[in-house]
Amino acid sequence: MKAHILTIGDEILIGQVTNSNAAYIGERLTQAHVHVNGSSVVGDDEEIIINEFKRVFEINDIVIVTGGLGPTHDDVTRKCVVDFFKTELIVDKEVLSDIKRFFETRGRILTPTNEDQARVPKISIPIRNPYGTAPGYWIEKKNKIFVCMPGVPYEMKNMMDNIVIPRLAERVKKDNYILTKNLLTTGIPESMLYDKLGNIDELLKGVKLAFLPNQFGVRMRLTIVSKNEETATNKLDEIEQKIRTLVGRYIYGTENDTLESVVSKLFIDRGLKLSIAESCTGGLIMSRLTNISGSSKFLERGIVAYSNAAKVELLHVDEDTIQKNGAVSLEVARQLAEGVKAISGTDVGLSVTGIMGPTGASAGKPIGLVFIGLCNDKICTAKEFHFGDDRLLNKDRTSQAALEMLRRNLLGISYDD
Amino acid sequence: MKAHILTIGDEILIGQVTNSNAAYIGERLTQAHVHVNGSSVVGDDEEIIINEFKRVFEINDIVIVTGGLGPTHDDVTRKCVVDFFKTELIVDKEVLSDIKRFFETRGRILTPTNEDQARVPKISIPIRNPYGTAPGYWIEKKNKIFVCMPGVPYEMKNMMDNIVIPRLAERVKKDNYILTKNLLTTGIPESMLYDKLGNIDELLKGVKLAFLPNQFGVRMRLTIVSKNEETATNKLDEIEQKIRTLVGRYIYGTENDTLESVVSKLFIDRGLKLSIAESCTGGLIMSRLTNISGSSKFLERGIVAYSNAAKVELLHVDEDTIQKNGAVSLEVARQLAEGVKAISGTDVGLSVTGIMGPTGASAGKPIGLVFIGLCNDKICTAKEFHFGDDRLLNKDRTSQAALEMLRRNLLGISYDD
Repeated sequence: MKAHILTIGDEILIGQVTNSNAAYIGERLTQAHVHVNGSSVVGDDEEIIINEFKRVFEINDIVIVTGGLGPTHDDVTRKCVVDFFKTELIVDKEVLSDIKRFFETRGRILTPTNEDQARVPKISIPIRNPYGTAPGYWIEKKNKIFVCMPGVPYEMKNMMDNIVIPRLAERVKKDNYILTKNLLTTGIPESMLYDKLGNIDELLKGVKLAFLPNQFGVRMRLTIVSKNEETATNKLDEIEQKIRTLVGRYIYGTENDTLESVVSKLFIDRGLKLSIAESCTGGLIMSRLTNISGSSKFLERGIVAYSNAAKVELLHVDEDTIQKNGAVSLEVARQLAEGVKAISGTDVGLSVTGIMGPTGASAGKPIGLVFIGLCNDKICTAKEFHFGDDRLLNKDRTSQAALEMLRRNLLGISYDD
Repeated sequence: MKAHILTIGDEILIGQVTNSNAAYIGERLTQAHVHVNGSSVVGDDEEIIINEFKRVFEINDIVIVTGGLGPTHDDVTRKCVVDFFKTELIVDKEVLSDIKRFFETRGRILTPTNEDQARVPKISIPIRNPYGTAPGYWIEKKNKIFVCMPGVPYEMKNMMDNIVIPRLAERVKKDNYILTKNLLTTGIPESMLYDKLGNIDELLKGVKLAFLPNQFGVRMRLTIVSKNEETATNKLDEIEQKIRTLVGRYIYGTENDTLESVVSKLFIDRGLKLSIAESCTGGLIMSRLTNISGSSKFLERGIVAYSNAAKVELLHVDEDTIQKNGAVSLEVARQLAEGVKAISGTDVGLSVTGIMGPTGASAGKPIGLVFIGLCNDKICTAKEFHFGDDRLLNKDRTSQAALEMLRRNLLGISYDD
């Protein structure tokens, strides 16, 4: 079965917003073994939208549309759906009560503009929206499927994962199985990872391997296409095991794991408590860990000690050490980790101090220089890292390296090869 | 003149790579006053690519293609160009010497596969590539322009900025000037913003207005297309002023401003210092502020007081108050702000406490309930907010509301309408 992804909105065409929705939908469809045949973007123009509906519905079995379902005048997708399918709008009672509840729980007054969003194309089964007021539409005609969703990413993702993909899974004819496996690494550059895998063709035996690097690490994506699901699964497992034998120490997770979720699980499973003193990351490490539900079980507290006064007063860093070595130094990192562990009474204390840029460099201390400290009941240590020139990327890289230091420490993986 | 952006590559269709190239090209074309009429993505399939060339070249004046120009078997764009324009490949001497030099400077041996990339469609003017081996192609036919570039982002961007846009600027008939203005709001839902603008057609007088919401607020994008640049600028300014009169209090910035950059500037300009006590946001507010270079000038310190012990020990919150009202309460928010201001000796203390979900709700305290406290030398207050069910969105919304509370406080904008 062939699918087309259609994104509606001037903001995508003029490059104000990158089309991450199309990427998300493309990935989900592929995982559901649906072949993505094409993708297109058109602006907020009724005539152009209806022509595009016609063109893509004719040559595909499934059309997934996002965007243009908001309550304001510039959102014309609903009108185009009504025209294209020669249907009419009717009030859907469930959607109306969803919208009313949405406003009630937020203590806001329902406006006629929003109430109007409960009117849906008669031909459609509405897709309810827990995160917003615009419902989606599921339409079946001539043995084909036409789906409309709002363009707001989290509203779309919720509908895609909970309604669209499960319904498609029931309908899709599985002529080919597309299986993928993502192995997530950090702390090793792409080229070194590649070299450690040795003869890659011999290793992969026809399975495709893509290296997808970003500031958090390198994602290795294995893909296999096969008529037989079991054969594909077995082969993928075999290749994964071979890769793990070669570079397993760098693999912190798979698929949608994050390093913060992996580290959180380790702390919770072992019943250990953590406290953190952040300087250059300004709270990012704590923020990433508190993205994980349940983090309050192990995360006792954190100090963002941006000023030297805060480092000395709150975390008992020795003032002379700062004077002698500077705030960005191995010894201050160690003392920060020791201090935060002591004042919090936790099992582990973690710290970071560094120069994120674009300003702040000095003789012998370039932008990108970072020290990460870690103390537990047995050791109290710090390690030096060198990152790049970009402030935000440096914050991301530092937070990732700090979390990886926790992971390696808990699992007893050394930094030496 | 109408332009179409065509991206070629399976990796875009299956969502392995987000189509940032199309966004970049769309933005550059718009800045050059070229109307972007559509955008599409097709996979690495010759028949599909040629059909798409045909379709989009027919209905547009300019077609910009990226992707599929690499040296390996899966790159078929060059072959499709030759077929579509019924031309042939010829060796371009300048491109050949570029490729040779590219390999020489990297100390690598030139392979026949790479040497073959010097053969370009006879109908084209090659676009030389300083960052890679694949040249681009500039083709003019029937008064239309057809451009092919490699898909590697930095190679494409270099060609786009240095060759394609300057050449287009010479050729494009400036029949139209396209100007845009973005007004960034927060703390008001899309529908309410819309209602406050009143009769929108009367207000806009032909200027287009789009509402682009996400968890941080609603972006209002004004667009005007006009034959005369000065007229367009004046009209855009006029409409902006009218909108500011109606909803100016909610507008925190324009274009690429962020609320953290706006708030940072206010603190730095006024020489005020800030300290923050975060509970439910776990460091996110501090992390956002420290994304801004220069934040160390006003951000003294922050405490992530996740546990009650941390709230009491570090921030002197009254233990009885926590017992009586719960840690998520108006009074604890107030005391947290007061406490962090006192221990840090700053001009302003900010605090947040709330329930981000999915767990942690109790009787009368649903997920999404948040209290934000703010104390300065004159007032010490807290405010109640209600957000949604999603943990990460709630963190984003809470951090945004807290920063907005700082902005309004510094500018003397009240929350009452």
